[in-house]
Amino acid sequence: MFVNQYDVIVVGGGHSGSEAALAASNLGSRTLLITTNLYNIGQMSCNPAMGGIAKGQIIKEIDALGGYSGIITDKSMIQFRMLNKSKGPAMWSPRAQCDRLKFSKEWRLTLEKNVNLSFYQDTVIDLIIKNNKVIGVKTIFGISIKSKSVILTNGTFLNGIIHIGNKKKNGGRISENSVKGLTEKLKKIGFLSGKMKTGTSPRLDGNSLNYSKMIEQLGDYPIEPFSSLSKLKIKNKKKCYITYTNVKTHKLLREKFHKSPLFNGNIKCVGPRYCPSIEEKIYRFSNKENHQIFVEPEGVNTREVYINGFSTSMPEKIQYKALITIPGFEKAKMIRPGYAIEYDYFTPTQLKNNLETKLIENLFFAGQINGTTGYEEAAAQGLIAGINANLKINEKKPFIIKRNEAYIGVLIDDLIYKGTEEPYRMFTSRAEYRILLRQDNADERLTPIGEKLGLVSFDRIKKLEKKIKKIKKCLFFFKKKKIKENIKICDLLSRPEIDINDIIKYSLIKDFIKKNNINKKILEQISILIKYKGYLLKEEENVKKMLRLENIRIPNNFNYNKVKSISIEAREKLINYKPNSIGEASRISGVSPSDISILIIFLRKKNKKYEKN
Amino acid sequence: MFVNQYDVIVVGGGHSGSEAALAASNLGSRTLLITTNLYNIGQMSCNPAMGGIAKGQIIKEIDALGGYSGIITDKSMIQFRMLNKSKGPAMWSPRAQCDRLKFSKEWRLTLEKNVNLSFYQDTVIDLIIKNNKVIGVKTIFGISIKSKSVILTNGTFLNGIIHIGNKKKNGGRISENSVKGLTEKLKKIGFLSGKMKTGTSPRLDGNSLNYSKMIEQLGDYPIEPFSSLSKLKIKNKKKCYITYTNVKTHKLLREKFHKSPLFNGNIKCVGPRYCPSIEEKIYRFSNKENHQIFVEPEGVNTREVYINGFSTSMPEKIQYKALITIPGFEKAKMIRPGYAIEYDYFTPTQLKNNLETKLIENLFFAGQINGTTGYEEAAAQGLIAGINANLKINEKKPFIIKRNEAYIGVLIDDLIYKGTEEPYRMFTSRAEYRILLRQDNADERLTPIGEKLGLVSFDRIKKLEKKIKKIKKCLFFFKKKKIKENIKICDLLSRPEIDINDIIKYSLIKDFIKKNNINKKILEQISILIKYKGYLLKEEENVKKMLRLENIRIPNNFNYNKVKSISIEAREKLINYKPNSIGEASRISGVSPSDISILIIFLRKKNKKYEKN
Repeated sequence: MFVNQYDVIVVGGGHSGSEAALAASNLGSRTLLITTNLYNIGQMSCNPAMGGIAKGQIIKEIDALGGYSGIITDKSMIQFRMLNKSKGPAMWSPRAQCDRLKFSKEWRLTLEKNVNLSFYQDTVIDLIIKNNKVIGVKTIFGISIKSKSVILTNGTFLNGIIHIGNKKKNGGRISENSVKGLTEKLKKIGFLSGKMKTGTSPRLDGNSLNYSKMIEQLGDYPIEPFSSLSKLKIKNKKKCYITYTNVKTHKLLREKFHKSPLFNGNIKCVGPRYCPSIEEKIYRFSNKENHQIFVEPEGVNTREVYINGFSTSMPEKIQYKALITIPGFEKAKMIRPGYAIEYDYFTPTQLKNNLETKLIENLFFAGQINGTTGYEEAAAQGLIAGINANLKINEKKPFIIKRNEAYIGVLIDDLIYKGTEEPYRMFTSRAEYRILLRQDNADERLTPIGEKLGLVSFDRIKKLEKKIKKIKKCLFFFKKKKIKENIKICDLLSRPEIDINDIIKYSLIKDFIKKNNINKKILEQISILIKYKGYLLKEEENVKKMLRLENIRIPNNFNYNKVKSISIEAREKLINYKPNSIGEASRISGVSPSDISILIIFLRKKNKKYEKN
Repeated sequence: MFVNQYDVIVVGGGHSGSEAALAASNLGSRTLLITTNLYNIGQMSCNPAMGGIAKGQIIKEIDALGGYSGIITDKSMIQFRMLNKSKGPAMWSPRAQCDRLKFSKEWRLTLEKNVNLSFYQDTVIDLIIKNNKVIGVKTIFGISIKSKSVILTNGTFLNGIIHIGNKKKNGGRISENSVKGLTEKLKKIGFLSGKMKTGTSPRLDGNSLNYSKMIEQLGDYPIEPFSSLSKLKIKNKKKCYITYTNVKTHKLLREKFHKSPLFNGNIKCVGPRYCPSIEEKIYRFSNKENHQIFVEPEGVNTREVYINGFSTSMPEKIQYKALITIPGFEKAKMIRPGYAIEYDYFTPTQLKNNLETKLIENLFFAGQINGTTGYEEAAAQGLIAGINANLKINEKKPFIIKRNEAYIGVLIDDLIYKGTEEPYRMFTSRAEYRILLRQDNADERLTPIGEKLGLVSFDRIKKLEKKIKKIKKCLFFFKKKKIKENIKICDLLSRPEIDINDIIKYSLIKDFIKKNNINKKILEQISILIKYKGYLLKEEENVKKMLRLENIRIPNNFNYNKVKSISIEAREKLINYKPNSIGEASRISGVSPSDISILIIFLRKKNKKYEKN
């Protein structure tokens, strides 16, 4: 029925599965995407927006590597904002409101264009494993499909249970079936799994809201597309609105806490700390008299709006009663209630840093199944798993992005070495070298890597080359030319009180910009490079130090029992995690700096050849 | 949470539910559409086409009454054909291939535009009933919502079971949950229900097919929109293809009959006789060496194609093995397998002819729940139920379309009086007066009725008036003017060997047409009116006779026990069905012509006042 043997089977068609399927098939793998409902490809299960703090950077990184989340976001974008523009450039984070259904449609159409990619609608409930290698999948309708590798991207579907008040219902999203049996099969093989929870907000009828009582939030102009390939002229098509809960809302909800599955014991596992439900926010921050509510349009033509900041699993009537206490929501009509969902994840420390499982060869996990939360985190893992599945079956070296190269590197490194006890989301604070990992230089950081992988189009490379050329030219000019009291442009710009917009008023610079067709984005980057020169140099120094440790390789079969003086805990963890380098070893919780020092000395003394630098 | 009391709650958002919701809300009822997944509104569960024989006429009728199926079809159309053009005009049937996902999207957007219509996502599992009147619904998440009337349009979701080979899975469509509990609640009240089955075909990857081995089928040019309101210039965007099964296909399937749930006893109930599965076709027509397969595109941009004529619930591998024996399918890749579904329906003789249940006041059933099959049959019932729910709660007389007025009248009359033991689909042969019920005159037949109901826009009425004016002018001209050997145009046209296209070559007529802006559709209708004059007059006579019987009213509380000489069976049936007229009584199976004669005599003698004419 199928080709005799696929190269890669991707299970799931969400953000992670879609990126994985395209990465693998673009690299030449004969890929099959299998999912329970092919019409639900690329669903935004929660709010209709992409990007935001640290997440916008991830989308830019995915794009720079040849992934598609940026392109799809650009195609379905209805409003754009650069968040944190008042803060330092490491914090600048692009965010887009999307048309939910268009987003999904664009993913489906994009996937369908790939000739190496096939589709099958069915539910995978088991893996076929031989000699600790995965060689295929089995479906609920009894089909076996063979492949050289399998990527599981099950999202919240593994044994998913939906909660609203004290009502429970099986489901991977509301009104969609959960997947039963797969967790159990994996556990039997020896995988450790746990339960996490997440939640989503009610959707209201936009026609029933009084927007005059809320604060309008317009998009930025002009819009900066996420993808360097997007030639679209994107417009802001819809407004967002801000309103606030109040004492009345909080009192009402607090009185009914016992009806929330989060408080009455129905849900015992942990939800995303930085995306708590409204009831958790009221409980945790009991002094706070209001919480911000962000009203997001669900699309260009729909009446439906998403109530961001009001994730809840209270009974519907309580959701409703609380909502109508909020200014602008007095006559709100609810279209879909908020709900919580419990689901299975697999402890991510069971993965190698190519996202392959340590236990079963050629089996990859990506997305929420690894305990993360967020569309962008999922998409990034999908991309990396797709790339690595292709490399693995072609017997090529794994593709690993380092912490100093990308948020994606930080994400995977954190997951693999630290694990996570609660849904993991990215923050700028998780990256040590965040001033290097900016949204504006994602292409410079990663497109050359993507080019080596063969995942990046010629178009993209040309664009980057052009950009770098312009930056160099501009920097050269700024360093050489003098204006006003005989000061070099770059020295003037490096003054904290001077903005790039002040500089470009000088006719000398104006002419240069015009002549060389230097755009706003390049000028912004020049400004960053000049103003933050000191920080950037320092961070680059730090990276070098870290890389030295990273380059002290630990052989795969290294016998930690020979290193007597390291602590028992460290030895156990090191034997379990099998780090490839001192750098990796140093990031394992329970391995102390003194353990690392001992290990370095041991490795250097015993075996000089493991050290490259 | 909701308005205190809705006027109408529509349960389900398919063809039937969507029409019902818009009809009720357009007539001014505060309406709530409630369904399990609001993203699945307006799904085409089976093939991506609207219309066809007798069904195309129904869409035109829906449109003429102010319904939306025609408009939605026009908006999502990717190919148009007028079927049966070589046969008599009663047989001409418009059919359109649609973009499946656009069809659904257009329904959702159209519904959302109606300010009287609200939406809620949840699953109805019970009704609230007081004094044999429905006053609301209860949902799976424990919500009660009140309303003056309820329309159930559950399609195939009531206790739906999906079959593929010997595998069974609950579901209302594949990958969507079935609705459990509602059938049981209704049975408890006293409703009779049964089980039916239907099936659908596998979807293949269009990229894997060899179209050069198939017969191309182009669309008609120019396209005739279904709706008189459509101003779109619709183009044929995709081709269909024809191929055939062969002896090898049949042998292969026949050898595996024991694996089909239709043959191995897993499915016992009856499927649609005129839309059998491929295995049933091979079994029933064992002498036939091939069956036609019609390859339908699923949309403008998708690779997926629908394999019409190959509905099956064989195990997937057998589906696949049989498919690749078909010319052009040698390298076919399956994207979704075909499957069968068993579901509950309610015996439609439990309904009044306004589609209200006899047992529970203000409760209406529409669509597949009444034992029909087909998008158009469902949509038509939805429209009528929506209209009648509005009329009923406003204490207005019910809206009943007669058999001589529309296929919709035939459909409902058949269901109500004859019931159905198998999925009921419309055929031209079911209509006694089919020469009157043509696709070209649906607007003339029904728009004036729609206008009286208040469901028809001013635009539509103006268009009809203009059309009728042109027809009259044209007919007058054709009856008056002579051409060629002093013959009147109409006499020449009435000759069987003369076609309207021959006539319009005469410059006298050419000039008239140009001057008066007479289009092809009007000329076709003129041609019908002249060529079929005799038949039309005869049929109109027959209608009058029938209406005389129809107008002999039977009072609601009529005591059939007083009419001693009618048969016992007839008496039982009459007491059960409570026909409103002799016409209705005559259509009840088991009531013989002699019973009718006796009844007429009794009614005329005893009570002259029941007779209007």
